[in-house]
Amino acid sequence: MSFIEKLNNIWEENDSLVCVGLDPDMDRFPASLRNVPDAIFKFNKEIIDATHDLVCAFKPQIAYFSAESAEAQLEKTIQYIQSEYPKIPIILDSKRGDIGSTAEKYAVEAFERYKVDAVTVNPYLGFDSAEPFLNYKEKGTILLCRTSNSGANDFQDLEVDGMPLYIKVASLVSDKWNYNNNCLLVVGATWPSQMSEVRSIVGDMPFLVPGVGAQGGDIEPLVKAGKTENGTGLIISSSRGVIYASDGDDFASKAREATLKLRSDINLYRK
Amino acid sequence: MSFIEKLNNIWEENDSLVCVGLDPDMDRFPASLRNVPDAIFKFNKEIIDATHDLVCAFKPQIAYFSAESAEAQLEKTIQYIQSEYPKIPIILDSKRGDIGSTAEKYAVEAFERYKVDAVTVNPYLGFDSAEPFLNYKEKGTILLCRTSNSGANDFQDLEVDGMPLYIKVASLVSDKWNYNNNCLLVVGATWPSQMSEVRSIVGDMPFLVPGVGAQGGDIEPLVKAGKTENGTGLIISSSRGVIYASDGDDFASKAREATLKLRSDINLYRK
Repeated sequence: MSFIEKLNNIWEENDSLVCVGLDPDMDRFPASLRNVPDAIFKFNKEIIDATHDLVCAFKPQIAYFSAESAEAQLEKTIQYIQSEYPKIPIILDSKRGDIGSTAEKYAVEAFERYKVDAVTVNPYLGFDSAEPFLNYKEKGTILLCRTSNSGANDFQDLEVDGMPLYIKVASLVSDKWNYNNNCLLVVGATWPSQMSEVRSIVGDMPFLVPGVGAQGGDIEPLVKAGKTENGTGLIISSSRGVIYASDGDDFASKAREATLKLRSDINLYRK
Repeated sequence: MSFIEKLNNIWEENDSLVCVGLDPDMDRFPASLRNVPDAIFKFNKEIIDATHDLVCAFKPQIAYFSAESAEAQLEKTIQYIQSEYPKIPIILDSKRGDIGSTAEKYAVEAFERYKVDAVTVNPYLGFDSAEPFLNYKEKGTILLCRTSNSGANDFQDLEVDGMPLYIKVASLVSDKWNYNNNCLLVVGATWPSQMSEVRSIVGDMPFLVPGVGAQGGDIEPLVKAGKTENGTGLIISSSRGVIYASDGDDFASKAREATLKLRSDINLYRK
């Protein structure tokens, strides 16, 4: 089953647009999980078990694993989701981008080594840097369009051909890169007006939306700006707001509460 | 010693602007090195031993390691250079780029896990995505400006504020991001006129120049366009043209020949 089919199914089955971001930072783990073998995997497993019926995706952020030489725990986390909760798509957040021959290796990293369903990709190097990802027809390629951070306006908002660069990215992806119908866009939660601009030109292409919670994006305007006609089209990702809802041993149950609240806050504005 | 000091020293000591890119693709290894434990490290070691006195840097491309789950061999390759040839700076080519809190983890990956001297970074997410790298004062941060691939013109050449986007990147890096005097730019070898444009606005900031050899960039125009007044300022990287100069057991001696030739071809136009 393709990533897009999996996503459509789980949006419905779990009645959820929430994606839980797995950004495991050991400094923020509860004391009982520090200096424990496989702590990252154990932390992730608790979060996954506590939230799997409330989410439309899990999104491990590879930087948190590679900073700790924890590739094996990333693999274990992904395998755990695939064996226990196979309906939930996994997005590897790695924002790769390189020339074609190197991009092929990054596509192997994402889709053959880690075997995830989708991956985030930086478009700055242009089409041939995305093509090796796009050619995995069943997999999702999620191109950065308008990100949620403060520096995003340095380049993404600059005007080119009478439109902001992020709109140019969205247009090119929609018109030229989506030949396998497997492209998505990253559109941050912090600028709803920009999200509706992007929505107006890319049809039903799904958005990965970082920036709710810790980064401060409000739910109502972003859902209204980004949803598609059937009330889906969004993968709204929260990492720190969910996984560090508590720094005690109740972190998993607090993560569940935070995910439940986010799901229902979002669902208020979907219809 | 900072990356920039190391670079200035080695440019002089080895009389070389050549960087050997370590893109170890096992499908292209000589038969005697296939299906051998630690093949990637062994291949790299031969290349390093054969070329160390002819280069100004080694540049491992992380995608070739991560596609093979070979992080340990990347570490071993780096440690080998640092122990045997400590004067030669190591550039990790990983083109990372993410929001601030994640970028911090990528900076840890490059500078604390792998302990390299410099790293390539994608600027699309703006200042806060580069800042965690820039704050390692002794380390080099090499921002993508104008890359050497065919798709580079999709976005990098678009006109913003009356100049191409890559010039805007170069200006911002030069004016605002270089507060620790540790920024460099990636400027591809395939467009010398663009290189001289960038040189004219960033002073003596060094360029990492991919695209000679396999990607077809000519030596004379690029050296003339990119060199600084003292005949340096360039880290001219060749990967496939050097490391796969032969697919037989003489690959290391052929790599040395190719590096010698590239160094002397470049040195013809430096003065």
